[in-house]
Amino acid sequence: MTADFSFAVESLCSTTRARAGRFHTPHGEVPTPAFMPVGTKATVKGLTPPQLRETGTSFVLANTYHLHLRPGEDTIRELGGLHRFMGWDGPILTDSGGFQVFSLAHMTRVTERGASLRSVVDGGEVRLEPENVIDIQRDLGADVIMAFDHCPSDPSNRREVERATDRTHRWLDRCVRRFDERGTVHGPQALFGIVQGGAFEDLRTRSVEAVCAHDLVGYAVGGVSVGEHEEAMELAVDVATPLLPPDKPRYLMGVGTPRDFFRAVRSGIDLFDCVTPTRHGRNHQVYTSRGRMNVRNATWARDGRPLDPDCSCQVCTTYSRAYLRHLCTSGEILAGVLLSLHNVHFFQRLMSRMRTAIGDGTFSDLEQEYLVQFQTKVPNDTGETAR
Amino acid sequence: MTADFSFAVESLCSTTRARAGRFHTPHGEVPTPAFMPVGTKATVKGLTPPQLRETGTSFVLANTYHLHLRPGEDTIRELGGLHRFMGWDGPILTDSGGFQVFSLAHMTRVTERGASLRSVVDGGEVRLEPENVIDIQRDLGADVIMAFDHCPSDPSNRREVERATDRTHRWLDRCVRRFDERGTVHGPQALFGIVQGGAFEDLRTRSVEAVCAHDLVGYAVGGVSVGEHEEAMELAVDVATPLLPPDKPRYLMGVGTPRDFFRAVRSGIDLFDCVTPTRHGRNHQVYTSRGRMNVRNATWARDGRPLDPDCSCQVCTTYSRAYLRHLCTSGEILAGVLLSLHNVHFFQRLMSRMRTAIGDGTFSDLEQEYLVQFQTKVPNDTGETAR
Repeated sequence: MTADFSFAVESLCSTTRARAGRFHTPHGEVPTPAFMPVGTKATVKGLTPPQLRETGTSFVLANTYHLHLRPGEDTIRELGGLHRFMGWDGPILTDSGGFQVFSLAHMTRVTERGASLRSVVDGGEVRLEPENVIDIQRDLGADVIMAFDHCPSDPSNRREVERATDRTHRWLDRCVRRFDERGTVHGPQALFGIVQGGAFEDLRTRSVEAVCAHDLVGYAVGGVSVGEHEEAMELAVDVATPLLPPDKPRYLMGVGTPRDFFRAVRSGIDLFDCVTPTRHGRNHQVYTSRGRMNVRNATWARDGRPLDPDCSCQVCTTYSRAYLRHLCTSGEILAGVLLSLHNVHFFQRLMSRMRTAIGDGTFSDLEQEYLVQFQTKVPNDTGETAR
Repeated sequence: MTADFSFAVESLCSTTRARAGRFHTPHGEVPTPAFMPVGTKATVKGLTPPQLRETGTSFVLANTYHLHLRPGEDTIRELGGLHRFMGWDGPILTDSGGFQVFSLAHMTRVTERGASLRSVVDGGEVRLEPENVIDIQRDLGADVIMAFDHCPSDPSNRREVERATDRTHRWLDRCVRRFDERGTVHGPQALFGIVQGGAFEDLRTRSVEAVCAHDLVGYAVGGVSVGEHEEAMELAVDVATPLLPPDKPRYLMGVGTPRDFFRAVRSGIDLFDCVTPTRHGRNHQVYTSRGRMNVRNATWARDGRPLDPDCSCQVCTTYSRAYLRHLCTSGEILAGVLLSLHNVHFFQRLMSRMRTAIGDGTFSDLEQEYLVQFQTKVPNDTGETAR
């Protein structure tokens, strides 16, 4: 690991493989386990950087494919890179576009050389190949950049998964070569490799070995946020993490929910990203310490209590359920903003509690507490008085 | 004036009737001239109360008609009133619904007793009369509440204006009676009367006399933000302000633009409200010290400069024109949020500069500076270097 990036495990759980650590980047420290809100187009939807900071967010994700299309990496490079462009001075990771090759599969053609996609902006052809994906990410200037991988569309189709996994390894070779050849534009960057292998233990094992043949700053487990992913995720994580180097950060891509976080952290995962908190926020769904809530529900029309009485975020310390429901039913912009703010805060608070619990030896107790919460919807008659 | 409300003129312009003062309310001081951003449904669209504070806003407007429909004044009363409901602890003014009777005229019937409107929520009938408009505003609990007026739909139709103006006076009698009979629910409130009279000098004069027959905390000039209003506004303001008591705040309703502010302040107006900065923000139009800008314009695609190099708001100190344009063309929520934030800041900064200039004797110079700005669009080639 270069001097610009380092990872230190600070505590280990005594009963699971969970670990708490600290990932040092040129734009600051990331205490792990960490959750990255998703800022696809160089904005975490609806939230300003100061609001993001307020949620406890330290690390943000942006997307190579979308930024390549609009405004284009040339523009962002000329304007001083992604940090300055989006006004976020903390660490940023850019996803490589591999996931878009999967999610836009109906308009994608993949060959050994790379992928041809349609532009979601103007329908034109977009070429993504290991080399230009690295070039784009060099221009964007995120702290952590991801290798270009081939994410198979059906993780249980062995023939397809095997081809995509082996191709991912050859593409990683090309990414590493390009990364070493083409210097940085804005400052030091770290390349993470991505493990594929679908729902197959032997392919996951083979993939970890191939990816770890490169001495990289960190390693990701990919291809798990696909369809009904719970079992595939467990297998992928359980197979991969014991084989990944213990002194490097491990990133589970595109996951997910509080339940997923516990499952993955107990197996030794350090980093997550997901659109869940902001997408749910815009759809008026929130996470609370009592379970999930649909804020539009008529039940809350005159409820003076905060969304979550145990939450210290700006939303819960300022507004009633009745007000937030009013914003939702009135179609007000502020509904999505405030509910996203609360949800991201909830996720960051969960990460913070996990870090503490790992150090304290209470990780399993915390897991139990949350699992009970997320089996239930928030009841109305909790016996609390309106504030 | 009651002890809960007071108004002090602190400086007078030597060459115009402009004055700077301080309006004291139970929820804090309002330095005047002041601009109230519009929070129709108990939210200034897209902005949180801390963001509003950051713009220099001290006084916010909300709307009786809309809040009566949804969530209803009962809900807001039960939840402790509008300040707590919307999380804004500064002064609030509620408009009376008179303007909605005008703006929804195609589905409104007005008689001596009051107005029948359609609900914009469910199409049902909504009755607004002087008495229930006061009752609703007592329940909502804003600091300043407005009398229910009849705003004529055509300010140049003398017959219609005369009828509406005289009716406004009879309605004011009923409002004052009801206001005195029905005590406060949440704390002290002040009632403002509204002067009508359209584009007719004699009717405006008659209206000021009738309205000022009541010793109220403040007086508003209404019926000017209608259609092509510039001349009607000038006449209304020039006729009314010399007749209004000099020791009471004067509020010009629904106005407007920087040009309007100068025109009205030089005649002695103290308070304004308008949707302009937030509506324009959501439509990607901004005010700058160089003139108006369409942020979507391709001209700004790679422009690294702030919207307004002379602006100290969070938006101008953080983001480039290129980034803001990117948010606009990408349909991102944050575009409307940030551009509204900038526009409200621009309006508040203008008010603040007016207050200083009135004290310094430089009000006319400041007016000249802004009038020149708003004759031009922002040029691209200003010779500035990209930051």
